[in-house]
Amino acid sequence: MSAFAPHQADDAAVATIRTLSADVVSKANSGHPGTVLLLSPVLIVNAIFRTCSDEYMIADRTLIPYVPDSFVNANPKNSKWFNRDRFVLSNGHACVLQYVLLHLLGYKLSLDDLKAFRQLDSLTPGHPEAGHTDGIEVTTGPLGQGFANGVGLAIAQAHLGAVYNRDGFNLINNFTYVFTGDGCLMEGVASEAASLAGHLQLGNLVVIYDDNHISIDGDTAVAFTENVEQRFLSYGWQVLEVADGDRDLASIYTAIAEARKETSKPTIIRLRTTIGYGSKAQGTHGVHGAPLKADDIASLKSKFGFAPDQSFQVPQATYDLYAEFGKRGAALEAEWNTLLEAYGQKYPAEHAELTRRIAGELPAGWEKNLPVYKPTDAAQASRKLSEIVLTSIIPSLPELIGGSADLTGSNLTKVKQSVDFQHPSTGLGTYSGTYIRYGVREHGMGAIANGLHAYGGIIPFVATFLNFVSYASGAVRLSALTGHQVIWVATHDSIGLGEDGPTHQPVETAISLRATPNVAFWRPADGNETSAAYLVALKSKKTPSVLSLSRQNLPNLVGSSIESAARGGYVLSEVTNEDLTIVSSGSEVSIAVEAANKLNAEGIKTRVVSLPSWLTFDQQDQEYRLSVLRSGAPILSLEAASTAGWQKYSHEQWGLPAWGASGPYLQVYEKFGITGSNIAAVGKKVVDHYKKQGVPVISPLVKAFQL
Amino acid sequence: MSAFAPHQADDAAVATIRTLSADVVSKANSGHPGTVLLLSPVLIVNAIFRTCSDEYMIADRTLIPYVPDSFVNANPKNSKWFNRDRFVLSNGHACVLQYVLLHLLGYKLSLDDLKAFRQLDSLTPGHPEAGHTDGIEVTTGPLGQGFANGVGLAIAQAHLGAVYNRDGFNLINNFTYVFTGDGCLMEGVASEAASLAGHLQLGNLVVIYDDNHISIDGDTAVAFTENVEQRFLSYGWQVLEVADGDRDLASIYTAIAEARKETSKPTIIRLRTTIGYGSKAQGTHGVHGAPLKADDIASLKSKFGFAPDQSFQVPQATYDLYAEFGKRGAALEAEWNTLLEAYGQKYPAEHAELTRRIAGELPAGWEKNLPVYKPTDAAQASRKLSEIVLTSIIPSLPELIGGSADLTGSNLTKVKQSVDFQHPSTGLGTYSGTYIRYGVREHGMGAIANGLHAYGGIIPFVATFLNFVSYASGAVRLSALTGHQVIWVATHDSIGLGEDGPTHQPVETAISLRATPNVAFWRPADGNETSAAYLVALKSKKTPSVLSLSRQNLPNLVGSSIESAARGGYVLSEVTNEDLTIVSSGSEVSIAVEAANKLNAEGIKTRVVSLPSWLTFDQQDQEYRLSVLRSGAPILSLEAASTAGWQKYSHEQWGLPAWGASGPYLQVYEKFGITGSNIAAVGKKVVDHYKKQGVPVISPLVKAFQL
Repeated sequence: MSAFAPHQADDAAVATIRTLSADVVSKANSGHPGTVLLLSPVLIVNAIFRTCSDEYMIADRTLIPYVPDSFVNANPKNSKWFNRDRFVLSNGHACVLQYVLLHLLGYKLSLDDLKAFRQLDSLTPGHPEAGHTDGIEVTTGPLGQGFANGVGLAIAQAHLGAVYNRDGFNLINNFTYVFTGDGCLMEGVASEAASLAGHLQLGNLVVIYDDNHISIDGDTAVAFTENVEQRFLSYGWQVLEVADGDRDLASIYTAIAEARKETSKPTIIRLRTTIGYGSKAQGTHGVHGAPLKADDIASLKSKFGFAPDQSFQVPQATYDLYAEFGKRGAALEAEWNTLLEAYGQKYPAEHAELTRRIAGELPAGWEKNLPVYKPTDAAQASRKLSEIVLTSIIPSLPELIGGSADLTGSNLTKVKQSVDFQHPSTGLGTYSGTYIRYGVREHGMGAIANGLHAYGGIIPFVATFLNFVSYASGAVRLSALTGHQVIWVATHDSIGLGEDGPTHQPVETAISLRATPNVAFWRPADGNETSAAYLVALKSKKTPSVLSLSRQNLPNLVGSSIESAARGGYVLSEVTNEDLTIVSSGSEVSIAVEAANKLNAEGIKTRVVSLPSWLTFDQQDQEYRLSVLRSGAPILSLEAASTAGWQKYSHEQWGLPAWGASGPYLQVYEKFGITGSNIAAVGKKVVDHYKKQGVPVISPLVKAFQL
Repeated sequence: MSAFAPHQADDAAVATIRTLSADVVSKANSGHPGTVLLLSPVLIVNAIFRTCSDEYMIADRTLIPYVPDSFVNANPKNSKWFNRDRFVLSNGHACVLQYVLLHLLGYKLSLDDLKAFRQLDSLTPGHPEAGHTDGIEVTTGPLGQGFANGVGLAIAQAHLGAVYNRDGFNLINNFTYVFTGDGCLMEGVASEAASLAGHLQLGNLVVIYDDNHISIDGDTAVAFTENVEQRFLSYGWQVLEVADGDRDLASIYTAIAEARKETSKPTIIRLRTTIGYGSKAQGTHGVHGAPLKADDIASLKSKFGFAPDQSFQVPQATYDLYAEFGKRGAALEAEWNTLLEAYGQKYPAEHAELTRRIAGELPAGWEKNLPVYKPTDAAQASRKLSEIVLTSIIPSLPELIGGSADLTGSNLTKVKQSVDFQHPSTGLGTYSGTYIRYGVREHGMGAIANGLHAYGGIIPFVATFLNFVSYASGAVRLSALTGHQVIWVATHDSIGLGEDGPTHQPVETAISLRATPNVAFWRPADGNETSAAYLVALKSKKTPSVLSLSRQNLPNLVGSSIESAARGGYVLSEVTNEDLTIVSSGSEVSIAVEAANKLNAEGIKTRVVSLPSWLTFDQQDQEYRLSVLRSGAPILSLEAASTAGWQKYSHEQWGLPAWGASGPYLQVYEKFGITGSNIAAVGKKVVDHYKKQGVPVISPLVKAFQL
């Protein structure tokens, strides 16, 4: 490790971050709050990112304790080094701070990129987007998400460390640092994740809480007066405090060191700071809502020893200081690669598995374990079919880390061989366990799963009733935006759940998920389609999937196959010169078949299309799609949900007019006319209507343009 | 007040509730968990509902302290008496308990209704539905919601009491009791609401926590090990505990009395109970998941002194005991009505306003205050237009209780004259204030608003960015299912928010809300349409509305009017024998007009339809709808969001192919082709396509059947 820079370099670095941030926001001139918000936590950012190999004096002559390593291990030249420490900016609106740091540390972000902050197609969008900007671990901005992602990142480390580390081979031992403000801590998703993190005793998680007492509505006194320390103590966290987060670097160092020492509790460090520290309006609400005025920026620069009339100034000493971080990180990665190689000599099987998982590759031939069904096989609920798939594939896919929001017995997500992921001291499981008991915390679960996937080497699956996936909408949306391969096992997916009634029966959920870009919403109709859903979901490395599964038994269909269903939509039952096509999904496909059989018996030629996944179907070529949903006869859609959106694939739509009902499920289906005989009657009306209309019927897929 | 029954009657009543609940679930035979769950908190239910006018001895000879009133004031013969105490069963899956109680107390629920538990179209659905079953205050089942509804009910009492009570006229002084289990307390929505309730010092709120240590996944030790007492202390609650909630009636009484004495803090009483108390499997996970077996029910009945082989037994003594509750409630209501009349003599204006609000009537002529615009009026953001509406109507509508999830300055929801709803001790406002600082707690806000509306006399409006309404999906869904008139002011509703980027730009939100039955999603295009949205939202007493509003300025359109827009959709710009109709909403309508002008100038006759609210448009008669979206020429939809669902109203759809982008908003619009010139070009393609197709173009509203 190279020698550390003297304290003057730190002071200059902190001043650089402060003035550079002000310039970046000023240039963007988009009026977004957050500029000066950034200024307060700068000191700690510097503290955790700069290297420090010996004790030294800071400006006020306080002795900094010896820190053998810098707090963050990472290599800016390879932001994907697996054992890097993860840094999450949960208050993503403060991303200027992160962008400035990434630039100074040597990530792929130039001064010009900083100048393009919040400009179209720049690398510096208004909120940090993982996969878009080098060095950003998770997408943040929607409050509370980053905090929960951090819990997922920490679980991932704990798990993979427990599975792969060996004596002398401490391969996976990184920390996760999360920055948070008041906003994230008010959000329920963060509360859920914090409670679980405490339960799981995640000693590898360090949260730094920028307590500046100001939110958009003004002083936090207007809405947020709880005792945050006490709340985190109640969750089982270690709570530390730094009274002067603006200036007291020594206490910041000490607190972080303390946090790292506590190995069986996550830590939150409450950092009392002054919003807009250094600006004329520091400590007031005014600095939250708008960029600093020009004269304030000039005064800020003067105060910190910079030329007041120049912008984007970075002293070479600051680049040099942060260059140490990169040198150290590169050396650490090289050491780690050597260690990994030696590990491969001693533990070839573990090495092969770990490196395969890090590369994000599935083991060859895994899909051969997917169950295949014949029509004569017994009818089963698709939640049960999902359990059979999981039981079949989990032995060859250790990267599948599952869990349910306290509905394990209903979602059928825990296979017999799996062990709970629990702190070993509980006697309930181990950190090498692959089944997470999320508790009744759907939103936290979804956001934690994003963190699990962001870590790498893990494909998380999570479970609840389909209706309650909407509790986690905020997290699902970010799975989709960032491309996290999270698989939702969403059971009890329609009125077919019966007696629980309309509070639990999804109506709008399917279309909501289908309309979210990059969400693969699957509603399999039988055993083969359930296998197909898992097949595509597991192969889609950048796509979250929601598997919408029934509580009630479904027959195995004549005409279904994994191969066909994996195209997202296919002709289940073909006739030539049809009078009608019925297109359906999931538990209603067998009802469509029943209706078609009745109609065919009466001479009304009816074919049936199964459309388990719109996203996947839309990805097929136009010729194939038009062969499935072809012109020439009307197409009637059938699904026990809102008909919204089905107009894209059909001329006429049958579904729920509004809410479901509580009762034995067959009676509920009958109430809403979702029976073979009623759909046959509806089908006749459709055929008659289009005959009377006397206009050639064109497929709804034939369009003037493709968007 | 009538004399109290001796303790034997209590014992018998408790036993009746226990055995009757077991019979109800057994008859329903739907295998739903929750039967025996109910058995544990029965004692406290009896304690709070039965009357008790003097001290007396319970079975174990403990002296019960004197309680001057029973704990719950309510009149089963008029479940809507305004000053009744509110009782919320947040763990709604335990609704058998509530149904049994409502029956015994004399609400409109017969023994036959109990026998029809979870049967189709019965008054006893699988989870309690307000508006469906007499005496149910709020719909529960989705966990955490009832807890937060309770906070809303308590805020409503505190507010209306502060506004209308006078010396000697303590008209509005009820308590709110909430039952909760572990599940609700794990949910983020409950955490959010609990934190706010503590901040607001709601001394009128009493939460009873059935701590039975069992959830569906087994012992709570697997996922829920936080210190709940400490957490609620951190929120500023009073925390009480009853160690033996199965048997210690005296402590239960004492705790409730203590809770009621604390006037400046909400109280949570932790009641340690045994799941399945009285059954053979008490205290085990097994009793959570399934109905009791027949022999266990028989043994339970024997143990409690009932005939083991008979079902649905209610001793007359139990009916008699609970009849006291009804007599007392009727007397209390009569007293209250007398008090209200006297109040009317002394405070006629307040009386008139209060009774108007209780009746749910708007004041005559309020809508005359809605602003009307001419095309020459300056362009403004629709969030600003919303603020102008609020400023205009709030003086005449004291029932409008608003608030924002910490985005007040962005949502523009606080009008100048409004005062914060805060505990007076804070110096930040008063309980008579009408503006609630929700903090960054969208889900809690939505659920609290449901409680505010459930109380009566209040029309709540709440605010956040449209994208974050989805954080509150669980609450919005229940607004819609129950018919709570909650108005969401959802600003920054598209890529038009610009620089904040895709993390904040809604894509799927609009269709998700449009597909939710009974949600009126409004996307007004200008000033008149914004006024229309408020007009319809305020007149729709049983419908939640989401007003989707722009950050950017919108011109006032030629052809718009409040009257037309209030029909949900109308022809903004008419031509005869058109070649094309463009249908659009909100901020894209003026772009559609620009495109139409270009096309008309080129001889392609183009009309423009504005469709601000699908729900409202769908409620118009078919003739009107077909006059707006008529056959004869193709219809192209335009909206800066997912095109999903627009196929119902158009032949071709232009919108966002996936996510938005961060940048100045006009550049973002340009990137996605949402400009007058590009839409004109797209319009030409559409016209050409349908000409080439050579098939008569039929309105998408012409259908074979109406669902």
